Amino acid sequence: MSELDTLIQLLAKLPGLGPRSARRAALHLIKRREALMAPLAAALTRAAQAMRNCSVCGNLDTIEPCAICRDGERDGTICVVEDLADLWALERTGAYRGRYHVLSGTLSALDGVGPEDLTIGALLARVKPGQEVILALNATVEGQTTAHYIADRLAGSGIKLTRLAQGVPVGGELDYLDDGTLTAALAARRAL
Amino acid sequence: MSELDTLIQLLAKLPGLGPRSARRAALHLIKRREALMAPLAAALTRAAQAMRNCSVCGNLDTIEPCAICRDGERDGTICVVEDLADLWALERTGAYRGRYHVLSGTLSALDGVGPEDLTIGALLARVKPGQEVILALNATVEGQTTAHYIADRLAGSGIKLTRLAQGVPVGGELDYLDDGTLTAALAARRAL
Repeated sequence: MSELDTLIQLLAKLPGLGPRSARRAALHLIKRREALMAPLAAALTRAAQAMRNCSVCGNLDTIEPCAICRDGERDGTICVVEDLADLWALERTGAYRGRYHVLSGTLSALDGVGPEDLTIGALLARVKPGQEVILALNATVEGQTTAHYIADRLAGSGIKLTRLAQGVPVGGELDYLDDGTLTAALAARRAL
Repeated sequence: MSELDTLIQLLAKLPGLGPRSARRAALHLIKRREALMAPLAAALTRAAQAMRNCSVCGNLDTIEPCAICRDGERDGTICVVEDLADLWALERTGAYRGRYHVLSGTLSALDGVGPEDLTIGALLARVKPGQEVILALNATVEGQTTAHYIADRLAGSGIKLTRLAQGVPVGGELDYLDDGTLTAALAARRAL
């Protein structure tokens, strides 16, 4: 297989790129050999060497523990997320000033993912009575199963467990919302 | 800027990836450090070093002249294409057994692209009387302008100039075709 085919095959494994767009990306890269291709190769090598999962929270960083765990300005709240992408999404809001715990997945009987495959043990060992733990898991069956499991394990430990509010998304139109969201938003209605 | 941000910014420059999908791709890569990230970095470096544009036709290959120009089985026809992606598309059909000439763009007064910016000079120097030159340029204004320009320059040189047929795409429904295509298909109708 030629160098080009190898490159296209590897690019096609990225999420969001299929065989056709991988060809287009490879062409784009080769046309911008100096400006993009060489820097991308270097950035991949550097990131592969430097990035490590934080042993405390599972976040990805070049330092250990990660910058968020080190940050003395952050409060004692722990926000449990499924995935790094969720941590990044919450960080982008700038609305949360606590620390995180990345589970690296959700419980799934179908896929054979049990509690020992996630970082639930590390979470249980990490939390202290009186601390708030926000379960910011996806509103999917797997996410909610995992949230219930963690809530069960933390029951009676003196932890203050919370979860993200469910309701109408900002900018959302009622007409386009599913029944579950509308029901949840109605049940959790607040006084004006 | 962190290693991760650098990687995300570079990935976001690939066609088909925006800032959001570049983040997703970076995450995907870091999770598959050994299986995908390191091989991709190596493939980029190798391809950047090895791939060269063929001095005869402009095709991309690791050998010079390229494998298509070297191939003794191919006939003397030259197919003029705008871009490498078009060459690849024609090669995938397996229906063409001649050689190519990659223009690396089209004439465009708006973008300031003149004949000297394309490989038109090399094409004129390369063709011999009696040879067939297929103008397989895109059916866009720029593509057709470029085709007309090349046809003008080759007029009287004894070259047999042809262009791709225009008509109804295979599987195309008349109802969804634009008027231009329908008009062209009607004008070029053939006896059954």
